[in-house]
Amino acid sequence: MLIDALQYNNWSENIFKQLQAGGVTAVHVTIAYHEDFRETVENIIRWNRRFEQFPELIQPTGSAEEVRNAERENRTAIIFGCQNCSPLEDDIGLVEVLHQLGIRFIQLSYNNQSLLATGCYESEDPGITRMGRQVIREMNRVGMVVDMSHSAERSTLEAIELSERPIAITHANPSFWHSALRNKSNEVLLKLSQSGGMLGFSMYPHHLKDKSECTLEGFCEMVARTAELMGVERIGFGSDLCQDQPDSVVEWMRNGTWTRETDYGEGSAGQAGFPNQPEWFHDNRDFPKILKGLREIGFSETEVEGISGKNWLRFFEQSFGPKIPLA
Amino acid sequence: MLIDALQYNNWSENIFKQLQAGGVTAVHVTIAYHEDFRETVENIIRWNRRFEQFPELIQPTGSAEEVRNAERENRTAIIFGCQNCSPLEDDIGLVEVLHQLGIRFIQLSYNNQSLLATGCYESEDPGITRMGRQVIREMNRVGMVVDMSHSAERSTLEAIELSERPIAITHANPSFWHSALRNKSNEVLLKLSQSGGMLGFSMYPHHLKDKSECTLEGFCEMVARTAELMGVERIGFGSDLCQDQPDSVVEWMRNGTWTRETDYGEGSAGQAGFPNQPEWFHDNRDFPKILKGLREIGFSETEVEGISGKNWLRFFEQSFGPKIPLA
Repeated sequence: MLIDALQYNNWSENIFKQLQAGGVTAVHVTIAYHEDFRETVENIIRWNRRFEQFPELIQPTGSAEEVRNAERENRTAIIFGCQNCSPLEDDIGLVEVLHQLGIRFIQLSYNNQSLLATGCYESEDPGITRMGRQVIREMNRVGMVVDMSHSAERSTLEAIELSERPIAITHANPSFWHSALRNKSNEVLLKLSQSGGMLGFSMYPHHLKDKSECTLEGFCEMVARTAELMGVERIGFGSDLCQDQPDSVVEWMRNGTWTRETDYGEGSAGQAGFPNQPEWFHDNRDFPKILKGLREIGFSETEVEGISGKNWLRFFEQSFGPKIPLA
Repeated sequence: MLIDALQYNNWSENIFKQLQAGGVTAVHVTIAYHEDFRETVENIIRWNRRFEQFPELIQPTGSAEEVRNAERENRTAIIFGCQNCSPLEDDIGLVEVLHQLGIRFIQLSYNNQSLLATGCYESEDPGITRMGRQVIREMNRVGMVVDMSHSAERSTLEAIELSERPIAITHANPSFWHSALRNKSNEVLLKLSQSGGMLGFSMYPHHLKDKSECTLEGFCEMVARTAELMGVERIGFGSDLCQDQPDSVVEWMRNGTWTRETDYGEGSAGQAGFPNQPEWFHDNRDFPKILKGLREIGFSETEVEGISGKNWLRFFEQSFGPKIPLA
């Protein structure tokens, strides 16, 4: 069982075959960055075509049970998520509709201020907004996971506090290892784990110590230190793999249509494109290397199984269904 | 010359005739509260039909020159504005497009947090967002007025500071007279006037001292005190008249689609609907009473002419065209 809690590839048969070759049981795929509801539906239509075209390789997935089915059938389970709340527009009724369409994760903000919460690139973070409080409650009700990967500190702490169900940071690393606006403080990681939430470790170079030069040993040591902080049941993968994407895509991810200047995000004018992947994680076929690295750093087989997939599976089990009212 | 910088009526031939009877030369009408771009265009289509149907009474207007034409032709000039930035969606390119469609005012936020700024009902106000800074610059470029009537204090002060052109608070009153989340502090009013901006006095009961029981004398005294604070050239009318609207409209204004609870805004569960207008301002035919009240409180004829229309006309002249680059 291997689960990756975030990928945004330029999807193709080749990548689906690599998922299978790497033993990836399930992957949370991003279907919206800046898209509104209608544009998100268009991305779902594209995925529906892929599910039709490659039924031996991938399947649409909205529950832990379906992830287990995928494992039995040797297919990769595809779970939809949004990196921004733009598909909700300003309509709380779209939370349930997006769940009906298979979406299971929504980030409350992506880098900038949203209608719900603050992104990690804003200079000020006032926390969860009036609409945000309403939307978190609705996400809790229908079984939509609150994802705070790109959100700012106070908004993230408030989301953990306000949400009646555990939340996720699907793709980020601890700031104690590599200081970056996208990485998370010890306080966030502790409160996340204490509330039953999950962290997915990112393998995106801007989130790694020494970026593209990061070593596998260094990465696995960070995982071990994070396990000490959060508990080994609260961590998994969230690679943030953006395979086969042209640089125009990262420019769009950063700039959308919100600015007339150019925002370089985690990059810079000199390095505006996607950074090079570390040598130990080019694509999904490299996951076995990481599992080996985790064993070598001292994790037990049971712990490696948890980090590689069972922790996320347990979280999916608790999170993707409607909230059960207390008896 | 009489200009009202905010009305949101249930428009009809009857109201257009009342505008004429009251001597109203120009009125800034709201064409969006929660609407997205496409829905705003639909509201423009409705106005296009009205312009076709009542060419003797009203005309579409996007410049001070056209306001003067309207006065000569004895028609009321209709100027479009949005009470929220929702018609911009997340696309800065829509600023210019909305200007091309005749919109001349956009509020950066309406009660809640927006992508650009904070509304006056949020508990925290972090000021203008990253996108907000970009959009203000673009509004300055094309000649779209920044309106902060429903925005929170810090966001308003920052908008005044960041905008290279004077901004407007089209419909609100001073807090020193009646404390309300929608009314404005002395600091805001001072900085607004010092930067060449304009305040339109609201006649909406929730913004009035003693609400529906407010007297005309009390209102005119408040105008006089505000003139002392801001200067008599920086003030005008912005009545916020919502004539002939059913209570379902104020419920929609407050709740849109952002909440599953009921937000009562300035009202309460016990008084959820539109409040009763003060007895001296039921509709546009009552403007002469207010002008009389201003004379009686001691304003000179020139001052009354300024407050009643010439101040707004001068502001329109400076604001509605593209920014002239410095030589």
